[in-house]
Amino acid sequence: MPLPLVIDTDTAQDDCVAILVGLLDPEADLRAITMVAGNVGFDKQVKNAWMTLNVADRLDVPVHLGCRRPLVREWVSAENVHGDGGGGLAIDESGLAPQPEHGVDALIRLAAESPGELTIVCIGPLTNIAMAIIKDPGFVTNVKSLYIMGGSNNARGNITAAGEFNFYVDPDAAKTVFAAGFADIVVVPWAPLTLVDGVFSRDEIARIAAVGTPLARFVVRVCEATLAFDESVGIMGSTHPDSLTAAVLLHPELISASSRYAVDVEADSELTRGYSAMSWGVHGLEPNATVVEAVDRLAFLEYLIGLFGTATTPPRPFDPAL
Amino acid sequence: MPLPLVIDTDTAQDDCVAILVGLLDPEADLRAITMVAGNVGFDKQVKNAWMTLNVADRLDVPVHLGCRRPLVREWVSAENVHGDGGGGLAIDESGLAPQPEHGVDALIRLAAESPGELTIVCIGPLTNIAMAIIKDPGFVTNVKSLYIMGGSNNARGNITAAGEFNFYVDPDAAKTVFAAGFADIVVVPWAPLTLVDGVFSRDEIARIAAVGTPLARFVVRVCEATLAFDESVGIMGSTHPDSLTAAVLLHPELISASSRYAVDVEADSELTRGYSAMSWGVHGLEPNATVVEAVDRLAFLEYLIGLFGTATTPPRPFDPAL
Amino acid sequence: MPLPLVIDTDTAQDDCVAILVGLLDPEADLRAITMVAGNVGFDKQVKNAWMTLNVADRLDVPVHLGCRRPLVREWVSAENVHGDGGGGLAIDESGLAPQPEHGVDALIRLAAESPGELTIVCIGPLTNIAMAIIKDPGFVTNVKSLYIMGGSNNARGNITAAGEFNFYVDPDAAKTVFAAGFADIVVVPWAPLTLVDGVFSRDEIARIAAVGTPLARFVVRVCEATLAFDESVGIMGSTHPDSLTAAVLLHPELISASSRYAVDVEADSELTRGYSAMSWGVHGLEPNATVVEAVDRLAFLEYLIGLFGTATTPPRPFDPAL
Amino acid sequence: MPLPLVIDTDTAQDDCVAILVGLLDPEADLRAITMVAGNVGFDKQVKNAWMTLNVADRLDVPVHLGCRRPLVREWVSAENVHGDGGGGLAIDESGLAPQPEHGVDALIRLAAESPGELTIVCIGPLTNIAMAIIKDPGFVTNVKSLYIMGGSNNARGNITAAGEFNFYVDPDAAKTVFAAGFADIVVVPWAPLTLVDGVFSRDEIARIAAVGTPLARFVVRVCEATLAFDESVGIMGSTHPDSLTAAVLLHPELISASSRYAVDVEADSELTRGYSAMSWGVHGLEPNATVVEAVDRLAFLEYLIGLFGTATTPPRPFDPAL
Ligand SMILES: [Ca+2]
Ligand SMILES: [Ca+2]
Ligand SMILES: [Ca+2]
Ligand SMILES: [Ca+2]
Repeated sequence: MPLPLVIDTDTAQDDCVAILVGLLDPEADLRAITMVAGNVGFDKQVKNAWMTLNVADRLDVPVHLGCRRPLVREWVSAENVHGDGGGGLAIDESGLAPQPEHGVDALIRLAAESPGELTIVCIGPLTNIAMAIIKDPGFVTNVKSLYIMGGSNNARGNITAAGEFNFYVDPDAAKTVFAAGFADIVVVPWAPLTLVDGVFSRDEIARIAAVGTPLARFVVRVCEATLAFDESVGIMGSTHPDSLTAAVLLHPELISASSRYAVDVEADSELTRGYSAMSWGVHGLEPNATVVEAVDRLAFLEYLIGLFGTATTPPRPFDPAL
Repeated sequence: MPLPLVIDTDTAQDDCVAILVGLLDPEADLRAITMVAGNVGFDKQVKNAWMTLNVADRLDVPVHLGCRRPLVREWVSAENVHGDGGGGLAIDESGLAPQPEHGVDALIRLAAESPGELTIVCIGPLTNIAMAIIKDPGFVTNVKSLYIMGGSNNARGNITAAGEFNFYVDPDAAKTVFAAGFADIVVVPWAPLTLVDGVFSRDEIARIAAVGTPLARFVVRVCEATLAFDESVGIMGSTHPDSLTAAVLLHPELISASSRYAVDVEADSELTRGYSAMSWGVHGLEPNATVVEAVDRLAFLEYLIGLFGTATTPPRPFDPAL
Repeated sequence: MPLPLVIDTDTAQDDCVAILVGLLDPEADLRAITMVAGNVGFDKQVKNAWMTLNVADRLDVPVHLGCRRPLVREWVSAENVHGDGGGGLAIDESGLAPQPEHGVDALIRLAAESPGELTIVCIGPLTNIAMAIIKDPGFVTNVKSLYIMGGSNNARGNITAAGEFNFYVDPDAAKTVFAAGFADIVVVPWAPLTLVDGVFSRDEIARIAAVGTPLARFVVRVCEATLAFDESVGIMGSTHPDSLTAAVLLHPELISASSRYAVDVEADSELTRGYSAMSWGVHGLEPNATVVEAVDRLAFLEYLIGLFGTATTPPRPFDPAL
Repeated sequence: MPLPLVIDTDTAQDDCVAILVGLLDPEADLRAITMVAGNVGFDKQVKNAWMTLNVADRLDVPVHLGCRRPLVREWVSAENVHGDGGGGLAIDESGLAPQPEHGVDALIRLAAESPGELTIVCIGPLTNIAMAIIKDPGFVTNVKSLYIMGGSNNARGNITAAGEFNFYVDPDAAKTVFAAGFADIVVVPWAPLTLVDGVFSRDEIARIAAVGTPLARFVVRVCEATLAFDESVGIMGSTHPDSLTAAVLLHPELISASSRYAVDVEADSELTRGYSAMSWGVHGLEPNATVVEAVDRLAFLEYLIGLFGTATTPPRPFDPAL
């Protein structure tokens, strides 16, 4: 039976790939997409989500708009990294509309409708998740699992030395989520995991391009802006933390190493804002999360290439054409 | 035309009096009560609200349950100050039920239904207000005014030297509210204002008792626990910051001094948690709030005594009897 | 027998008056002046100290240069308040030289030479005192008393809403001093004490001027810059926290109210940097300081006027002439 | 010409090895040892230093006692890691005495005596160095280089997930040092460098033991306690960050990789206390330190084994005998 899941996303670049995983993998029963302030302008993120649904011919999936700002702090963008996050593409959006229900309420409702069954793939700042925790005292126990892309496992950040973007943008939300008492949290960190096992080289991107489907062309397109940025900061390829998070949920056999950690997030100091303190078992702290430490990178790439081979007919043409 | 308002409250002791102001004053059009985690156990607060509506024979007023916890931090109670906050009274609650709509959503909806007209009297931690700000980007401009009981105007706190209870319990929410850009915020601080102009002596409480109505007996009863605590910490009377906040909204002529301040709240340090930095105009900061500096204490007392003279027939008997 | 004391000072304006108290009052045995970074440029502060010794004809008093910067943070000046802190006056300094011994070492040595006898009048940032604590484990017990001008007693700051200048400039030092375990600390806070009982009106300054001695003329001169600043921020007179600190040490009968407090200083957050949390006995904290709450303002004024009546012949002429 | 240097140390275990490097390597002109609060009780650290000088027959080297506590915070020990830090050994100390000059003053004087020539090997908390900076405005420019063992290079801490011991114990000092403007700072971090290239296995320790000299027996002895602790936390060998710091100073050819970083230290938050933010060039910050990224581990081991082969006759017998 496919796994019921929601993807909570600041859709830009690899968020699109993660959504495609949720849309295309038969193991997934993607019930909704909820949007959160993060990578690029909120409305642009929604456009990126529509385009992703369109390329997969799945415009039926409900899109809920969540929080347009972090809990306490002002929003910070990553547009220097992602550009518009959608590869400069556009579609005619006439007739497309998000659900009237707010993203936070959708998360609360979907969790309550199937207590202990819903997994949320969290690939943006954790604002919506924290809001659901604060608003509904039943949310934490209703959720089966959170799969979170964020933080670093005793390794480097990206937006600052200490801070990975998702946790940096809303450190208060991240701190709230890790303290909330969820039964199962799985973390896909930026470093070292993503930087080692979540990077695809230009040659590998070329392999994706060679698949030749609209899906593959779309993916290559949206990854291009980030690829250029990555190379400018010494990362030799495009980074895929969000799609990796979705992939390890649906295919845990991709995980070659993981451990239990006590995770907390810095929300008081500017220098270390968003830093994820991940204690590995020697400091006497109770573990609250499983952190993925290694995955089979080539198997992950093959898995994506397989998915992108799916033949789809996007109902709305892309401009420029794919 | 009466003023449309909502009272957002952690109902205990003077919160009850503030709700009575909203119920009894003909200047007020109290559209809802929203509950927030604060003084005492959340469910006990709801009982205190029901009892307050009952004594005024206004069980028709909608009660919405809001957040049962602060944004980021764990809830801290003030039960050492307030006891149960309801004077040890109880009523039969059969058939009473809060609205199905969450308090945060009620605030958002009521503000949106009358853009620029709704005033919110905020007499508990600011969690619900912050949640509404974060959830709905239109909330801030839809609200006419916030009347906030909280903080100190360059004077002492209560739960700590630096921190007044409402801001201390949820400093992140308070910080968020003052930074949100509301057109009109009026603050009734704990000190010096409440400690000077919001205290009623035992003799004055006796005057209230002498009014002899169910309302007056109820008020005296719920103030007793706090009175004993106040005296133990050197305050010679019961404190009425919450009812004062409602009163100055409906009767601004009670205000004898107020000024514009730039208000910010400490949310990063434990020593000064919840401290309200109120800059009075010499530090080059843009004012974002009006702080009430002095009121006519006796006129405030007479005003309340007048209200408590209203004859009501509580539909449900109190146990013990009033 | 006169009281052995050292004055640790960031000499500008009222620091000069405080030094004069130490020089002129027969109750005082002023053994040294130690200089610390604070009000104005360090070298200007030393000039102000020389001028003060000169006007009292006491150039024999040893002057030790202490720390030119706070412990951790960068120095912040109060030159907008004090101008040069010396009333635009100058003297020929040829032949004048500070002691070769560093101020911190002088404090350590003088305390060690008379264990349990030395009082330090601390009227600048507490950097030198903290350094002595950190450097010499015997310093804390060797000192008899610290008389500290700094912080606010649950009242306003000056450089920010939360922060009084001395503690703001070096909050780490202030925190260190209050946690060090001194047997006797007496605090003269900025507010409310200084703002109520440490302000002299223009009429009262005129009374000082009328004394007609070089001392009186010097004092009026150095107070002028601050007087203008004070009036610009709503304080109707010149402020005398530093001389009040020296005065209450030598004449405790000036104190009309004081209490024991648990004092701690904020050194982690920028918003509340330097805030002095003064808990008045209801929060279960162990008191570590006596805070002066009220003094006899007129007696303080008369005391100073009496001192300024001392006839002195400054050995070096002032430019411009007094 | 040998390099003039001072070792600033909290002598326990590998600090002893680092001192031996300074004593035995002909490239080094070790002018003094300064002691700082860190690993174990201060007086025990001094005993460990005497024993180290004794085993090398160099009791002529001046030992100066520095600060027995951090700048602002209370001292935290690492005795759970190091035991007494001296392998349970003792010598008769009659007639041994530290210099009368304080360690901070020794650092200031030695730097001032040879401006631009003195290197300080800092292998404990940075309290003494910060004190010298704060006390003497000329210190920073007088020093040629600081070689600092501390922090982590975007990798794990030890005493907490975020914090390496030396920076954790006195984060205020560490922050002060990196902000002070030294012309040359070289950092040997705990992770990944020490954990990869500064660990010697039990077999390698056996190779050291096989050298058979008093020096080698002493080294093996003092490393034993740490070795057991290391294995208990998953490090398969004894750790040598302090001796590595001295070694790379005298033999930069051991360094196989290093880069310029902008280093700052967290001193405001408890969760991330002592965290070293090391920005690697993409965040627009000005570099202030060179961080060693890799060394030739086997060459480092051979180097030490060579030094330990030096024949010495310790003037005082060890108890128990080596
Ligand atoms: Ca994302
Ligand atoms: Ca309340
Ligand atoms: Ca001063
Ligand atoms: Ca060490």
